Amino acid sequence: MKCDRCRRSEPVYFREYEGRSLCKRCFLQTIEKRAREEIRRYGGISGKKVLVAVSGGKDSNAALYILWKIAKRSRAELQTISIDEGIKGYRKKSLTKAEELCESLGIEHQVISFKEEIGVTMDQISELGSPCTYCGVLRRKLLNEYALKGGFDFVATGHNLDDEAQSILMNLMRGNIKRLLREENPKNGLVPRIKPLRLVPEEEVVMYSEFRGIPYYQGECPYVEMAFRKRIRDFLREMKKESPGVLFNLVRSWEKVRNLKSKPDIKLNKCEICGSPTSREICKACELMDIISLEFT
Amino acid sequence: MKCDRCRRSEPVYFREYEGRSLCKRCFLQTIEKRAREEIRRYGGISGKKVLVAVSGGKDSNAALYILWKIAKRSRAELQTISIDEGIKGYRKKSLTKAEELCESLGIEHQVISFKEEIGVTMDQISELGSPCTYCGVLRRKLLNEYALKGGFDFVATGHNLDDEAQSILMNLMRGNIKRLLREENPKNGLVPRIKPLRLVPEEEVVMYSEFRGIPYYQGECPYVEMAFRKRIRDFLREMKKESPGVLFNLVRSWEKVRNLKSKPDIKLNKCEICGSPTSREICKACELMDIISLEFT
Repeated sequence: MKCDRCRRSEPVYFREYEGRSLCKRCFLQTIEKRAREEIRRYGGISGKKVLVAVSGGKDSNAALYILWKIAKRSRAELQTISIDEGIKGYRKKSLTKAEELCESLGIEHQVISFKEEIGVTMDQISELGSPCTYCGVLRRKLLNEYALKGGFDFVATGHNLDDEAQSILMNLMRGNIKRLLREENPKNGLVPRIKPLRLVPEEEVVMYSEFRGIPYYQGECPYVEMAFRKRIRDFLREMKKESPGVLFNLVRSWEKVRNLKSKPDIKLNKCEICGSPTSREICKACELMDIISLEFT
Repeated sequence: MKCDRCRRSEPVYFREYEGRSLCKRCFLQTIEKRAREEIRRYGGISGKKVLVAVSGGKDSNAALYILWKIAKRSRAELQTISIDEGIKGYRKKSLTKAEELCESLGIEHQVISFKEEIGVTMDQISELGSPCTYCGVLRRKLLNEYALKGGFDFVATGHNLDDEAQSILMNLMRGNIKRLLREENPKNGLVPRIKPLRLVPEEEVVMYSEFRGIPYYQGECPYVEMAFRKRIRDFLREMKKESPGVLFNLVRSWEKVRNLKSKPDIKLNKCEICGSPTSREICKACELMDIISLEFT
């Protein structure tokens, strides 16, 4: 049996949603091709400044590796950043893997921490309940501010196909349409995101990392509270076993929806406290900071 | 304990997604209010000709009953139609319940059949596999043609909130965006649909029918093949137990999406064979009829 793409080598993987078997080399090539196409959707990164958010996990490390390969040939300037939320027994270990990869690729690696930036750690904040809400909102805010200050053209993240499909479904089921439709561009204060792995299924990110020998940390955040997301994740995993194209359909369906609106009519305000873009009067980050400061100062 | 709406009677139902207990009378009033609001979205049925598709099941019988209540006061002209697909041991029994309700309300009831209209029954067609596809496509076509010929302003169906949420999710996961976005208006050959129960959860339709003493048939179609829909239905049922608002969110999210597009830019063609509106060259119904005629004539 031969690879259905090159017709030469022995296949190592049957890609069910395409109905074809691939050899290792073709598998790697198709993943990298998909990442390049994804980046091209944003006009490419040639000559651009890209801030890659790395946690040390499989997704962001794989995304960094691919971006590094692309950047080598395109005079893009890469810099990486990790956010240390202050989660004992977890984040330091994963940052070691981020550091390890950055060093081997010769890329500058910066770490900023919740402790230094906002004065408290996630271990403290977790006492307030809903840790993921605090963590997500604050991390996005710090990341965006850092990218704005540094004059970056893009923030790159490791989100894969499964993450994207989960987010779309979660936001639809929570009625969070604004979040799903908002445009990221510097004019409204949000640095555009690129997600090279947006159309790569989770299991293929793992395979890619294994084949390429990319180091990554496998641990899971101790605070992970996933009642809602977990159900959606489990459901999508079940569905994908039966109909392998289901995640692609979901993500592409939403893409078509986004393209429907010619002009972005979801207007963003400036947060009355920090001036960040927000759909509210006071941004979610400032609202949460308010709760935090009441508790911890 | 008193009803949270009228503060007088004893509650019979705790409506979790609103966090309030309702007495029988208030429960019935809120369901009918919701149906009226839904109809108002289409400009109301006052003075209009409405074709109600009834199967004899709980949803379409409840929808007919509510429409009858509304029509009494609004000079709307109601007529009902049932489609007898030719399914032994099932459809005749359900049509008895449709007939029973129509008679008690004094509404004209028409039955058309697959056998007479297209020459074969579903019992025959089912031999081809995928019975739900054939049945759904052909039923919609017959219904629309009947409504067009009769000069009806609306076709009313019994779809409830659960049906709507399932359809949205199914179509998203199948990449069927065109179906989700198409507009129904007589200009493109599709008679507009109204769904009075669109925002009424399935369990409340059952309660409504019980409280009002509306007769309905409880049987399930023997051909029901629900691998995909069933998984989605089970998932949504699970989700709704945890987060009671989830179906509303999904349906309303999609409503917001639909409202995004100022102009309907999903253009429909005319089927080259029958002239019906279609997004393809030859409509799905004609394609299926082609398969059927090859097999049965």
